[in-house]
Amino acid sequence: MDSKQPSRRGFLAAGLGTVVAGAADRAFADNPKNLPPNIPNWTRSLGDGVAVRAYGQPSKYEKHVIRRDVQWLTASRESSVSFTPLHELDGIITPNGLCFERHHGGIAEIDPQDYRLILHGLVDKPLMLTLADLKRYPRVNRVYFLECAANSGMEWRGAQLNGCQYTHGMVHCVEYTGVPLRILLEEAGLKTNAKWLLAEGADSASMTRSLPLAKALDDCLVAYRMNGEMLRPEQGYPARLVVPGWEGNMWVKWLRRLKLGDEPWYTREETSKYTDLLEDGVARKFTFVMDAKSVITSPSPQMPVRDKGFLVISGLAWSGRGKIKRVDVSLDGGKNWREAKIDGLVLNKACVRFYAEIDWNGEELLLQSRAIDDTGYVQPTREELRKIRGVNSIYHNNGVATWLLKADGEVENVEVS
Amino acid sequence: MDSKQPSRRGFLAAGLGTVVAGAADRAFADNPKNLPPNIPNWTRSLGDGVAVRAYGQPSKYEKHVIRRDVQWLTASRESSVSFTPLHELDGIITPNGLCFERHHGGIAEIDPQDYRLILHGLVDKPLMLTLADLKRYPRVNRVYFLECAANSGMEWRGAQLNGCQYTHGMVHCVEYTGVPLRILLEEAGLKTNAKWLLAEGADSASMTRSLPLAKALDDCLVAYRMNGEMLRPEQGYPARLVVPGWEGNMWVKWLRRLKLGDEPWYTREETSKYTDLLEDGVARKFTFVMDAKSVITSPSPQMPVRDKGFLVISGLAWSGRGKIKRVDVSLDGGKNWREAKIDGLVLNKACVRFYAEIDWNGEELLLQSRAIDDTGYVQPTREELRKIRGVNSIYHNNGVATWLLKADGEVENVEVS
Repeated sequence: MDSKQPSRRGFLAAGLGTVVAGAADRAFADNPKNLPPNIPNWTRSLGDGVAVRAYGQPSKYEKHVIRRDVQWLTASRESSVSFTPLHELDGIITPNGLCFERHHGGIAEIDPQDYRLILHGLVDKPLMLTLADLKRYPRVNRVYFLECAANSGMEWRGAQLNGCQYTHGMVHCVEYTGVPLRILLEEAGLKTNAKWLLAEGADSASMTRSLPLAKALDDCLVAYRMNGEMLRPEQGYPARLVVPGWEGNMWVKWLRRLKLGDEPWYTREETSKYTDLLEDGVARKFTFVMDAKSVITSPSPQMPVRDKGFLVISGLAWSGRGKIKRVDVSLDGGKNWREAKIDGLVLNKACVRFYAEIDWNGEELLLQSRAIDDTGYVQPTREELRKIRGVNSIYHNNGVATWLLKADGEVENVEVS
Repeated sequence: MDSKQPSRRGFLAAGLGTVVAGAADRAFADNPKNLPPNIPNWTRSLGDGVAVRAYGQPSKYEKHVIRRDVQWLTASRESSVSFTPLHELDGIITPNGLCFERHHGGIAEIDPQDYRLILHGLVDKPLMLTLADLKRYPRVNRVYFLECAANSGMEWRGAQLNGCQYTHGMVHCVEYTGVPLRILLEEAGLKTNAKWLLAEGADSASMTRSLPLAKALDDCLVAYRMNGEMLRPEQGYPARLVVPGWEGNMWVKWLRRLKLGDEPWYTREETSKYTDLLEDGVARKFTFVMDAKSVITSPSPQMPVRDKGFLVISGLAWSGRGKIKRVDVSLDGGKNWREAKIDGLVLNKACVRFYAEIDWNGEELLLQSRAIDDTGYVQPTREELRKIRGVNSIYHNNGVATWLLKADGEVENVEVS
């Protein structure tokens, strides 16, 4: 039998669970107080009732599941970042408390009573909306991924960060509720020479980006909710731009101003930043779309393998161009590929969850995944990307990552050529 | 023009937003410091950076969005309840911190290292699984609603609670990740006479319910995640039963034991409780399925209308028998109906979000919604339900609710006959 094909004799044979056979059973022996056949403490005493005037929190046993517990990455108020703990999650929805953050001037704390959104420039009727106004408009609900253009940026020059939270954790996926930007633009009345939109944040960085009008009229939202509730402060409370499939920096948070113009503004964040410096010194301009990408979240450097036998390899895939059509997994660093099983929702410009089941006999594996979207685009290797783009880039690294699964179950971020 | 058909002249005409016309504009005048054309405080000073070693929290301006802020409903540790603030949400996903709770012996605080799930009775191989074992099994991701059988229970005898949080808030909808129960049952090996399953919780109530084997083999899960992260303590951390479309009490939390038998156990929670006492003294037995239901979440008693003009009526609908096919809205207490627009995901046994747009001229309206599922079932009126079931019941009240929208915009829970 191929040791990498999961056993059909059942999961027990592959090391999961215990057949309850007698007093010698490991579980019966290792904690006589709380384990069967005894009644555990939590069954013998009344638990806490519901909390009054409190917002629910995770279990105290999950305190390690947070967006950052390291000091070694920039956390200054001027340039501040945290990471979705992808290795500790499953499914496709990211809970709001674990969505990565990236701020350029800290978190603007906006009083919703004083919030205003201005829409002006090449329009017939400049508008100013309160939050209450915005909430009265027709709205839609869409699940989208949001990926920072700099996600995996440090990996351009080789495997550097040992954990998918840090190599790939600048992505999250939630259900947004917001007003289609098209409705607001039609309300204001576009002048015929309006071709571009400037979006400005109310943070102290006054984050500003230029957006082609066609995208604004297509699927952008002015969103004020994520996963049902109001946006979190670090996600732009009370309102942000949603630019499906495009780089996260354009999803302007704390959205204050939308201006229509006839050409892009060439702001700092789309010239000196958020462009890709090629080998010959030319910078790629307006690389808005986040191309298809995937990552194995378990096993991964922060999620080693504890037992031999049946093993579910799990990960996320997404594409800014549409739906994920297929995900492949390799155990040998890209020499051979097998199709993974995509489970759960497959939505436009949203994350999908994939699984591949193997029987792991303890041999070293080079784990990789590659995403294929419905345009036919195949996630490239890092080598293929470097051939075209060199190694000066920070942004748009969607190359295939490699995890070395070692004999002891530990996992390391490595490069294969 | 029919005043209840929304204006096609644009939303501004219907009272939304402000055309920026000059210094006399209301918004320019009412807060010279923080409002345009001035630069607000939050743009003039650096905001906080990301928090290290912290789980993200809602805005301080959203502190009122909680599961209960009243003392008048039972909150004893023996019988404890809180409610999803439906009026403050949109879309279909409920954030984990706002999912309603109902406990019969308080919240069991289980050390995940000591957690065990036992599967025994009419099986070939009794099993005991650790949480780590459970996490190694193949899993699936499904979005389901969970509704307490007693949701709307106090409304049987007439409109009693003034707010959809309290009349309908014992429902939530999240993405679960879990092991199909079928896999565990097949692993243990079912004896031919196995027909029922007993599910037991590890809380101090030892919550126990009987489940027909056909359902267990169909779509039930042993879930350990909600919206990506581990279950919250109040939702059964570290593992609960997911029984799609069936009453919430059967979704046993803190799941400790699954026993296969040849007949139901007739436990306390399916005999003296969670049955419906009819007018003639007979109790309806095993009313597992939650039938199609809907509620208008805005406007609603806790979410009055502040302005005349364009108004989006919004609500949720769900059915334990399948997908929601249509939702109708009435403005006159059920005399006339119009089809609402369902927006966003339409999934099996999950909530859907609906909207109906009207121009409100200030006249009194009797707002109702009714859900129709893909079996053709139409959500009944309360009167229709009472004719068949009397008024002794607590559970399974899926009758149409009525909100009286008054001239001043306030909303009241009322009865119509």
